[in-house]
Amino acid sequence: MFEFLKINADLGVIFMCAVGVILSVLLVIGIKRVKIFDPRMNEISSFIKGGAMAYLYRQYKVLAVFLVLMFFLIGFLPDLGFGVAAAFLFGAILSCCAGYMGMRTAVISNVRTAESAKKGLSSAFKIAFSGGAVMGILVVSIGAFGVALVSYIMRLIDPNADPNLVNQLLTGFSLGASSVALFCRVGGGIYTKAADVGADLVGKVEAGIPEDDPKNPAVIADNVGDNVGDVAGMGADLFESYVGCIIAALLLAADSFNIVNSYHILLLVAGGLLASFVGIVITRLLKTKNASLSLNIGTYVSSALLVGVSYLVFSKNIYLFLCVLCGIVAGVLIGKLTEIYTSAKYKTVKKIAASGETGSATNILSGYAAGMKSTALPIIVIAAVIVISYSLGIVSGSAFGDQAQQCGHIGVVLAALGMLATVGMIVSVDAYGPIADNAGGIAQMSNLDKSVREITDNLDSVGNTTAAIGKGFSIGSAALTSLALIVSYTHAAKLDTIDIFSANVLGGLLIGGMLSYLFSALTINSVSKAANHMIAEVRRQFKEKKGIMAGTEKPDYDKCVDISTKAAIREMILPGIIAIVAPIVVGIIPGLGKEALAGLLIGATVTGVLQAISMSNSGGAWDNAKKYVEEGHHGGKNSEAHKASVIGDTVGDPLKDTAGPSLNILIKLMSIVAVVFAPLFLK
Amino acid sequence: MFEFLKINADLGVIFMCAVGVILSVLLVIGIKRVKIFDPRMNEISSFIKGGAMAYLYRQYKVLAVFLVLMFFLIGFLPDLGFGVAAAFLFGAILSCCAGYMGMRTAVISNVRTAESAKKGLSSAFKIAFSGGAVMGILVVSIGAFGVALVSYIMRLIDPNADPNLVNQLLTGFSLGASSVALFCRVGGGIYTKAADVGADLVGKVEAGIPEDDPKNPAVIADNVGDNVGDVAGMGADLFESYVGCIIAALLLAADSFNIVNSYHILLLVAGGLLASFVGIVITRLLKTKNASLSLNIGTYVSSALLVGVSYLVFSKNIYLFLCVLCGIVAGVLIGKLTEIYTSAKYKTVKKIAASGETGSATNILSGYAAGMKSTALPIIVIAAVIVISYSLGIVSGSAFGDQAQQCGHIGVVLAALGMLATVGMIVSVDAYGPIADNAGGIAQMSNLDKSVREITDNLDSVGNTTAAIGKGFSIGSAALTSLALIVSYTHAAKLDTIDIFSANVLGGLLIGGMLSYLFSALTINSVSKAANHMIAEVRRQFKEKKGIMAGTEKPDYDKCVDISTKAAIREMILPGIIAIVAPIVVGIIPGLGKEALAGLLIGATVTGVLQAISMSNSGGAWDNAKKYVEEGHHGGKNSEAHKASVIGDTVGDPLKDTAGPSLNILIKLMSIVAVVFAPLFLK
Repeated sequence: MFEFLKINADLGVIFMCAVGVILSVLLVIGIKRVKIFDPRMNEISSFIKGGAMAYLYRQYKVLAVFLVLMFFLIGFLPDLGFGVAAAFLFGAILSCCAGYMGMRTAVISNVRTAESAKKGLSSAFKIAFSGGAVMGILVVSIGAFGVALVSYIMRLIDPNADPNLVNQLLTGFSLGASSVALFCRVGGGIYTKAADVGADLVGKVEAGIPEDDPKNPAVIADNVGDNVGDVAGMGADLFESYVGCIIAALLLAADSFNIVNSYHILLLVAGGLLASFVGIVITRLLKTKNASLSLNIGTYVSSALLVGVSYLVFSKNIYLFLCVLCGIVAGVLIGKLTEIYTSAKYKTVKKIAASGETGSATNILSGYAAGMKSTALPIIVIAAVIVISYSLGIVSGSAFGDQAQQCGHIGVVLAALGMLATVGMIVSVDAYGPIADNAGGIAQMSNLDKSVREITDNLDSVGNTTAAIGKGFSIGSAALTSLALIVSYTHAAKLDTIDIFSANVLGGLLIGGMLSYLFSALTINSVSKAANHMIAEVRRQFKEKKGIMAGTEKPDYDKCVDISTKAAIREMILPGIIAIVAPIVVGIIPGLGKEALAGLLIGATVTGVLQAISMSNSGGAWDNAKKYVEEGHHGGKNSEAHKASVIGDTVGDPLKDTAGPSLNILIKLMSIVAVVFAPLFLK
Repeated sequence: MFEFLKINADLGVIFMCAVGVILSVLLVIGIKRVKIFDPRMNEISSFIKGGAMAYLYRQYKVLAVFLVLMFFLIGFLPDLGFGVAAAFLFGAILSCCAGYMGMRTAVISNVRTAESAKKGLSSAFKIAFSGGAVMGILVVSIGAFGVALVSYIMRLIDPNADPNLVNQLLTGFSLGASSVALFCRVGGGIYTKAADVGADLVGKVEAGIPEDDPKNPAVIADNVGDNVGDVAGMGADLFESYVGCIIAALLLAADSFNIVNSYHILLLVAGGLLASFVGIVITRLLKTKNASLSLNIGTYVSSALLVGVSYLVFSKNIYLFLCVLCGIVAGVLIGKLTEIYTSAKYKTVKKIAASGETGSATNILSGYAAGMKSTALPIIVIAAVIVISYSLGIVSGSAFGDQAQQCGHIGVVLAALGMLATVGMIVSVDAYGPIADNAGGIAQMSNLDKSVREITDNLDSVGNTTAAIGKGFSIGSAALTSLALIVSYTHAAKLDTIDIFSANVLGGLLIGGMLSYLFSALTINSVSKAANHMIAEVRRQFKEKKGIMAGTEKPDYDKCVDISTKAAIREMILPGIIAIVAPIVVGIIPGLGKEALAGLLIGATVTGVLQAISMSNSGGAWDNAKKYVEEGHHGGKNSEAHKASVIGDTVGDPLKDTAGPSLNILIKLMSIVAVVFAPLFLK
């Protein structure tokens, strides 16, 4: 049995992916069984669905141009060729598929969650979680399927194919996934925050209407944004991490190791899929009245299962099992730390809320400082994972005569894989939040009973915490994935050691770090620009259509959706080009070259991770500080502290939902670009 | 002649230092010639002087405890010993002397600047600049004197002394200077911003009285803060950079180079002193009506002179001259770039001011993004200096058979020295600003004629621009100095190559980067805490002493001075301890060790420089955006845009005057700690 699996590990992965697809079809059937008879709910739902799908189509149209250009660029480069180009396209298309199907499910789930909330919390939770789970399952199933298929096809065509060729195809596949992820994350982040800020500033603050009021012209754009940014963007992000990490592991394993082979990696992936699916099914079947508890049970079950599976896979080399364990534990720890810094249950958020009493400036300063301070422990966890798993890797290999440093690197990549193997469960939990949020919006706009809104609010607030944890998790995994890819790059670029003290490495480090600052500045500015357009449009509608506030005239939702869509598409291009072009330029320029590029990647990763943690946690903490004040602390709504907290929340929005998450992709994408184009720098 | 100088280069430096001391005595005599007869002015001046001196005494008392502890710690460590401990103490005491004398001069100059302003701009400018110049001259003269004296004494005692011993003494000296600098910068930064924020929030915003109104109980603390933070703190900062850079150059030169010897370094230092002095004298003698122009002429003259001197010093190896030239040009460029990002003449500040029209949140976001974006070009300049001067160093050494990498490093350190050699001029220009600012405060509080205030305002606004340029300069020079010291560390720790891909180096990079975030968070929080105390105290006085606002009762200035003093002293301790302890702990811990420490230093430098540029420029831009609005743009004073810009300015204050500048010291101090304690990590 094990021998069969060993040879056909890729088939095992493909089998688990098929299970995943069946599972997601079953979940969709379950969701669709809920029928909506309320015409108002159907109308609102179709607006959101229409807006979301319209955005995706336009995004894919722009992406198509980019993909075709890249296809020919890669194809005509003598060192890469059309095989790699095809793999690139395959990765990009699969990523789009996962995003498309996941979001389609999300937009049919939200209205059904609102409908089920009429029956109670448990029913509503089941639908919302099912919707998120489809995204989670598809992300991992499609991702793993693509990798396994590339590997299987190569094995069929020529079992003795040059491993370098297989590696090139795999990295091409990964580059495709990464490119799509960047555009989805940046575009989605700009879309959602432009709509959010626009809707809040004019609607809530100026016109004094509540959140999700159908009188607000930007309300549909805001709800569409939740799907576009938090479901599709986040899914693409973790799709990329997952695929990138598996491929980095396969590349390292292929470099002639005695201790790890590609089938170890693939078996671990298959086991991770199984663990995620079991966790999802258990969460779905549990009859609980506490959404948070159900999600936690599911997450812990899948982590525990993964521990078991990885023990089986590495039973002959316990040190490698310990590497995987390191990654699993670190993932849980980083999630927990993120919660401590961003949840109103703990003192950081309470302090920020209190500081609002002396005005906006002190509120901003304390949130800003809290974000920077919150980097300390997660960074120590990440550094510890790297140092410990590296040492374990060396110990594990010492008996087999493998080169020490390479064994150390395989240890780190296994830890990354341990963190990411149950990503199916993580995405499910993460995508559940925006569905619940949207359900609340639909309930509000359709004038459903107050009890319905209470249930969706309850689900939503659980979703806020899980979203923060998910963000911490995606940053941690991005850091490890990026490092794994950088190691692959050094192999591809034939670099033995990168001396930190040669000038070009130092220059690269500085430029890499700077890129993550520049990138953040660009994305934040894009949100500001788009939000300003949105603000102007909403004000115009309120001014020109007097009937809106009286309730006799319908606002022009489409116009607002259109503004967000156009802004997102336009503004995602420059950051995307920088991410792809900068590493190639630095790698080619004389005087910098491939060593400088290694420095650039490390500099971007170190600074990017710090920036991402800091911005995500500042934003999360401001958000929850506002909610804490709104619960009645420090004077409650409309107090000085509340006004300050609203400003803090608005400042934090693009930090936590646009710039921070986009940095995750930036560092991974630049690394994979370096791997793919490495042959160019060898000359 | 040249042969004599070659052997007695240290005596040449000591001679130039003596010239500097005479020059500063002459300047002080010139300042004291202005007599003050107005009793009100004398009273206010004595308050400020008293507060500033009281703060210094208390700071030195705490420092004394720390210095004695460190003295015995270093003395009893078998690898270091009491020789190094004595050098450490010597460096610390000299740094204190420079700070003490410079600040003493500053506090007698400010009232005399106000007095001279009665006679016109030119007279006032002469006094303000003389006050700043004393600080500038003392910083470089005392710093260079200490280094040259250590070197000369060792030559007298034993001409064939072990070069390692000399190096150890020099680094001990540098550690003393750095430790004092950290406490002065952090303490001064907290002092000045706590007073500033407290005075502004309650005085200007709540009580509605103008800036520098004697009714405000925090007004004296605010004026004291300008001296404590912007004069003493900044002076200590550049004293450290200057000393650290010279010593790093001497260490590298001592490591058996054929191309550079210690006399080259010392001659360059002496030439730099000369260039600074000439620039200062010319600026002082010029009869001009444009303060900005005079300062620029002085700066350019000293830079041009330095170009000439360094050409003479390195006439036999033109490549090394080009390295120095690189540094000089980069210093000017970084200063200019800083001006572009922070002056209201350029579009960045105008955009930030405009964004205030849609509220505080958009104002904060655009300033925050502008700071991050402003890292791009200065980082490219720094990276280019490193890459180019490294290559030039290698070329220069190739004919002499020196080891390539070491020659590259000497190239980088010469560029750093080029940037720093005219630091005497830079500090003079920088310290002039707060003197003019204080003069304005005294004029306001003494009810002098409006024309006097107009002249001091004019001088002050020029000072704001020069302060921003000075900040850019100190960051750039801190980056290069820190790198030079890290290179010295690798020699001291006998590290040949630091492979970026060994796990402990990676872990070190992450932890180092994190430290600069943590450090910023701590200092910002300290300011917030201290400002809250100040706010409470000012409110209490207004409430309990009803006569203050009526003008019948005097506010209790001492109480506010006391709050700032205590807070600054208390809050400077934790960041100081982190900076000194963290590198030692990482160097000693098993599993991390000396390689990890190298990673830590690089990580802290890369991230620290980015953070420092970003925070300083954000803060400077917000400050000038506020002034721009106050000039009447976007609705002028009391408009929505103005309120938003005041919040932006308050947020930016601790970023640009506390956290940002403190990072400069953090990175240099950690590097010098690593050099001094390197023998501990060898076991």
